Amino acid sequence: MARSVVQLSGHIVDSLILPKVLDLIVNLGAEFEILDIQIGQRRADRSAARILIEAPSAEILETILAKIKEHGALPLDEEESVQVEPAPQDGVFPEGFYATTNLNTLVRFHNQWLEVQPPEMDCGIRVDPAAMRAETVPIHKVKKGDLIVIGHRGVKILPIERRVPREVFEFMSSPVSSEKPKGLLIQEIAESMKKVRQESGKILVVAGPSLVHTGASEYLVEMIEKGYVQILFAGNGLAVHDIEAALYGTSLGVYLDKKIRSTEGHEHHLWAINQIRKAGGIRQAVEQGLLSRGIFYTCVQKGVEFVLAGSIRDDGPLPDVVTDTLEAQDLMREKIRGVGLVLMMATTLHAIATGNLLPATVKTVCVDINPAVVTKLADRGTFHAMGIVTDVEPFLRELCQYL
Amino acid sequence: MARSVVQLSGHIVDSLILPKVLDLIVNLGAEFEILDIQIGQRRADRSAARILIEAPSAEILETILAKIKEHGALPLDEEESVQVEPAPQDGVFPEGFYATTNLNTLVRFHNQWLEVQPPEMDCGIRVDPAAMRAETVPIHKVKKGDLIVIGHRGVKILPIERRVPREVFEFMSSPVSSEKPKGLLIQEIAESMKKVRQESGKILVVAGPSLVHTGASEYLVEMIEKGYVQILFAGNGLAVHDIEAALYGTSLGVYLDKKIRSTEGHEHHLWAINQIRKAGGIRQAVEQGLLSRGIFYTCVQKGVEFVLAGSIRDDGPLPDVVTDTLEAQDLMREKIRGVGLVLMMATTLHAIATGNLLPATVKTVCVDINPAVVTKLADRGTFHAMGIVTDVEPFLRELCQYL
Amino acid sequence: MARSVVQLSGHIVDSLILPKVLDLIVNLGAEFEILDIQIGQRRADRSAARILIEAPSAEILETILAKIKEHGALPLDEEESVQVEPAPQDGVFPEGFYATTNLNTLVRFHNQWLEVQPPEMDCGIRVDPAAMRAETVPIHKVKKGDLIVIGHRGVKILPIERRVPREVFEFMSSPVSSEKPKGLLIQEIAESMKKVRQESGKILVVAGPSLVHTGASEYLVEMIEKGYVQILFAGNGLAVHDIEAALYGTSLGVYLDKKIRSTEGHEHHLWAINQIRKAGGIRQAVEQGLLSRGIFYTCVQKGVEFVLAGSIRDDGPLPDVVTDTLEAQDLMREKIRGVGLVLMMATTLHAIATGNLLPATVKTVCVDINPAVVTKLADRGTFHAMGIVTDVEPFLRELCQYL
Amino acid sequence: MARSVVQLSGHIVDSLILPKVLDLIVNLGAEFEILDIQIGQRRADRSAARILIEAPSAEILETILAKIKEHGALPLDEEESVQVEPAPQDGVFPEGFYATTNLNTLVRFHNQWLEVQPPEMDCGIRVDPAAMRAETVPIHKVKKGDLIVIGHRGVKILPIERRVPREVFEFMSSPVSSEKPKGLLIQEIAESMKKVRQESGKILVVAGPSLVHTGASEYLVEMIEKGYVQILFAGNGLAVHDIEAALYGTSLGVYLDKKIRSTEGHEHHLWAINQIRKAGGIRQAVEQGLLSRGIFYTCVQKGVEFVLAGSIRDDGPLPDVVTDTLEAQDLMREKIRGVGLVLMMATTLHAIATGNLLPATVKTVCVDINPAVVTKLADRGTFHAMGIVTDVEPFLRELCQYL
Repeated sequence: MARSVVQLSGHIVDSLILPKVLDLIVNLGAEFEILDIQIGQRRADRSAARILIEAPSAEILETILAKIKEHGALPLDEEESVQVEPAPQDGVFPEGFYATTNLNTLVRFHNQWLEVQPPEMDCGIRVDPAAMRAETVPIHKVKKGDLIVIGHRGVKILPIERRVPREVFEFMSSPVSSEKPKGLLIQEIAESMKKVRQESGKILVVAGPSLVHTGASEYLVEMIEKGYVQILFAGNGLAVHDIEAALYGTSLGVYLDKKIRSTEGHEHHLWAINQIRKAGGIRQAVEQGLLSRGIFYTCVQKGVEFVLAGSIRDDGPLPDVVTDTLEAQDLMREKIRGVGLVLMMATTLHAIATGNLLPATVKTVCVDINPAVVTKLADRGTFHAMGIVTDVEPFLRELCQYL
Repeated sequence: MARSVVQLSGHIVDSLILPKVLDLIVNLGAEFEILDIQIGQRRADRSAARILIEAPSAEILETILAKIKEHGALPLDEEESVQVEPAPQDGVFPEGFYATTNLNTLVRFHNQWLEVQPPEMDCGIRVDPAAMRAETVPIHKVKKGDLIVIGHRGVKILPIERRVPREVFEFMSSPVSSEKPKGLLIQEIAESMKKVRQESGKILVVAGPSLVHTGASEYLVEMIEKGYVQILFAGNGLAVHDIEAALYGTSLGVYLDKKIRSTEGHEHHLWAINQIRKAGGIRQAVEQGLLSRGIFYTCVQKGVEFVLAGSIRDDGPLPDVVTDTLEAQDLMREKIRGVGLVLMMATTLHAIATGNLLPATVKTVCVDINPAVVTKLADRGTFHAMGIVTDVEPFLRELCQYL
Repeated sequence: MARSVVQLSGHIVDSLILPKVLDLIVNLGAEFEILDIQIGQRRADRSAARILIEAPSAEILETILAKIKEHGALPLDEEESVQVEPAPQDGVFPEGFYATTNLNTLVRFHNQWLEVQPPEMDCGIRVDPAAMRAETVPIHKVKKGDLIVIGHRGVKILPIERRVPREVFEFMSSPVSSEKPKGLLIQEIAESMKKVRQESGKILVVAGPSLVHTGASEYLVEMIEKGYVQILFAGNGLAVHDIEAALYGTSLGVYLDKKIRSTEGHEHHLWAINQIRKAGGIRQAVEQGLLSRGIFYTCVQKGVEFVLAGSIRDDGPLPDVVTDTLEAQDLMREKIRGVGLVLMMATTLHAIATGNLLPATVKTVCVDINPAVVTKLADRGTFHAMGIVTDVEPFLRELCQYL
Repeated sequence: MARSVVQLSGHIVDSLILPKVLDLIVNLGAEFEILDIQIGQRRADRSAARILIEAPSAEILETILAKIKEHGALPLDEEESVQVEPAPQDGVFPEGFYATTNLNTLVRFHNQWLEVQPPEMDCGIRVDPAAMRAETVPIHKVKKGDLIVIGHRGVKILPIERRVPREVFEFMSSPVSSEKPKGLLIQEIAESMKKVRQESGKILVVAGPSLVHTGASEYLVEMIEKGYVQILFAGNGLAVHDIEAALYGTSLGVYLDKKIRSTEGHEHHLWAINQIRKAGGIRQAVEQGLLSRGIFYTCVQKGVEFVLAGSIRDDGPLPDVVTDTLEAQDLMREKIRGVGLVLMMATTLHAIATGNLLPATVKTVCVDINPAVVTKLADRGTFHAMGIVTDVEPFLRELCQYL
């Protein structure tokens, strides 16, 4: 029998933290005893509990301690430092390295709690003893000899306490289905966007090419012009079809202002790519007067940064596309600093890639007509996410009216 | 070897009728020889062909002749009368009865071609020798001794010739996906609706309860007020939630004008049902001043007829619901006479049931966020159907703007 | 300020009952104070708490008391009897009637707690003072003068405590997606079915017509022959296509043992309907030797009861179909007594209708390739439900191997 | 008025080529006159037609000629050579370059018809006058000065004639829905695979990670062992989860042989990545004895080539992943030579990327539980594609039984 006493404090009853911890203990094969508990009598009060865990083996106890730590449960004796080990070679972590969550995390090192910056899931933690700093490091960036945290001792996670009455972004435990009213929700998203901008936070838009196909670009252009977009993440497709529309009036060969498919337009998107390649890039095409309307034209005019990440289904691609996926990831990592709200629309690949990089605390709105995409994103631990199952064109149209 | 010569005429090349007929002949196991063909040189010209069919058996030849008849291919010698036989008992057709399509159909009887009225699929054809009339009859309506058409001899079908340039309703071979622009399409639907009304045709709306859940009722109310709805087909659910919204402001317990689910509203829809049952029905509730807003209130005020067909998932139901499904079907059959355009929104059961009753020539728009529903309807041989994959609330909002 | 003290007991922490109650109190606009709490130290121990609720008005307090009652929270003074009032007319409840949940429920009447039988959601509670019995009554069955419970005072609900480690049927908080392994799950369903049969419980199968289209009927036949189906709920479609397959080898005109669509088979399902109508019904067709294979033949041979409920999209229908939906509902109500496990496959309408009638404690497995259907069922408060997103034919094939 | 006479020959009636050409002419705004036509009397006979096109402008005529060329309609005077122009710089085509289809194509150059090799859509055509060769060239591979085809004159496309009775791969005009029987189809796919192998063609498998999550890997391993896979295209995900399963028994932390989610396994896939990075790659891990089971182990053992293409959502990635998307595309291009059949399972990105590179004549089977994915692939002009909507695990299990 292996034993440990952990403590929990905060709004652990009404934010469901205590039940979850008890659940994990039993699910992972151990028993618990609540040694003492003080329940906050009123909403504003905090609660605290000490729990004895009895596990059949030391190994299981370790697993449990590692797991309940994600909910803020710390062993009483957890005043020991993290264990670190040097990376054995470039791009390789030491065995048993600690894998991060997207929650705010602290590590205890030389009797001090260091905040791990920035929060990002599925990375390692690198400790710099000289500067007394701790940072998340993706595996491809680790250098031989870097000191990397091993195991979970000395790691503290600050769970997100969801309390009532909730903010709209915490409210959604499941995606907003197509069978629910959406008007007020869209209004609240608009309010959140305004608030982020008032506080000088950045708004990141992640968008797929059907934004252009459905005729929704004009609303994104309007949002950019009004200052509600600071960064745009997309792929070659969005840019190509936006530029195709700007140059030829079609999107994948479909005239956006006519009802009937232009059977002639097959080549348009390839010709658009060729023109931008000749110009040297999107910015250059704007400067040369070649490109004078659309999403990317407006981005260039308004100084909105964009990252176009490459994929194997790209035609061309445009010169602005970062074809190396690691390089693109790193660029996205860099740009999300300071982002206060993310609007993901009609894209699976780019939305999930962005979600992987975001701290859990960043507000995220994910809009797609396919409920599977929305669920997939919510499943990946993106906590402050609101999923809306709807058609992207009317969504953006209505959002613009509230901005 | 069994042989027959059939002839085809009309726009058989560009409306794909000739290729389909040749395809069927070979697929069903026979060979063809084109004896002669005149191809219309220009679009306005008609073409004609005579085709010899050689089948391995008389039975296969019969099958082929029955099948290609649906595309207008008639044996040269098809001047013989239809065969009729009396129904052996009430509700039972004679063996080998001819099963109708939803296309315009003629039967040759006593050297005369009689038009079969009204076109409806999956029925029998009853011939009245005294009145020299032919009519479709659903199986449950046949009476012992009724003369019913046997086999396919003497039956002529007028296929729909799809020609270019096409009307918007013919244009759609596949549903309009969520990735296509929809604005202009919606505008055209509005134009079609106006045209139908100018020609004094009726517009039938078939709608599911999520019309209320999503907050789209106000647009349907507006359409009714403007005179763009003459008949409404729905189930208990649409009426219950519309009346719940009118009486309590909620839909399935969700406040339509607030963002958060009213956890208290579980009983509202049951209380709404109870109130209408007490009043004696929807019309009575309006007359008593109990019901003073919403879709059904407006229907009563504006004289719009509605059929509420029962289903086994109904709560209550409301007194207006026709709980017998055969009776409901018959009522729907009766009401669709004179309908020029059908708008089906957010319902599978009622949309398919209505589609089964409609002649192929009635313009049909089917709107659902689930592509599977839209495809399912298109698959059932509803020819002049346009399927749109989108969210019903913004669809109706936009449609109203064009009306 | 309106105040009330409620108490809660049981496994209220780890089955999330306490946090849910606190959540409801705050969400509905009141404040709470935990007066005292004893937390069970170990898993086997029960906890208890007394909570003071302070609401801004008596009306809000009532709403809260009604709502938290669904989680077992009872006012301390709740020893008063239920209020009852006579139904004003046949088919109409008195104003403010109590609407049932599908959980086990007690009502206090003349100082005695009466168990309400059977648990069914969205009904009223009728109290018989002479027999001291309480029963759920659907609205259409209430008679003038029946004593019906009003308000929520004196009503006690026994919430389902979900505890760890969970049974497989409790385990699923969300549907099993198509991206998860299903083999072991299917094995467990087979084990549950065996156990239900060992305990002489009944197994109810609810199935849609694509069971026949996909070629899965043979597995259902096998299950029936092995004694794993006692009752079958379906619509006209399943029976028609099963009989079409038995008589003609096709399903909706597609030969089940050939790859290519039989273009000739359009009439087959109508001819099948006609033959059974002539015979007088399915049982008669079996007795007359007309029907000698398939699902319904096997049902007749093995004495499996079936309910075929009508819908407005039915062709025919077969004489066995109960066309009145209220009558069909009542028949289903009657047959589900004693059912220990329900297997719902490839049907939305019949699955939801059945789910509405079932007590929350009956184990339910819902299989559909469309995640939306599975989610829809889970959303409707069917607690012990396991949703599996997969193709029904291989699911049944594999299930049969484990039986 | 601009005029041109084109001719068409082959099975132009029953493979729908003639009607499509007439359709295009009218849709694009011109009129036609059929100057003469000889219709093949029997199936084996070929037909031929000469059609006069009258367009309102020379520009429209050009568009029409370019478009109907995709269906094999060539101007009578099309004996002139293709026009070529030098590429203005590396990676840029000259203005008005001809964009290829995935059909077999010839170009007339110096009075000779050169076959363009290999067929690939959305590329340019580079002509080498010295070697008298023509080849497709993706835009990023063109070098300054390369002679590139301009316009469509002198380009001839050989359309695919779909004739009856059709092969199973031609048969499917729309995806096989989940409501159709699949057994015989799977049997035919197995037969096609055997035939491809007998003729020494290669089979390419393109697969997504849910193949591992659903427990289907063992069947893919079996197919590899039996020699039915020569090449595997996938992403980092498939390899990571396959290796995670091999090393830890979990897939995304879910134990594949247990019913309950392992809450401890979050790190497993990251640890798996780290181990392979340390080993230097998948092959090295096999050689070092670290990796001894699973899909990729079997690939290494059996000499199956694999391409792992990078994406921005990758964790790690594994050293074998080609992170540059252009480089990955080029590698895929190289490997598909000689492929006779492609099996795409549970992946959108890799399936579409592969589809873009394939000639129209390669048989393609696309399996996914999501109908949208299957439709998307079919929409992209992958002609010989068969889409099957089903769960991938039982599909592969059944396929293996027939191999």
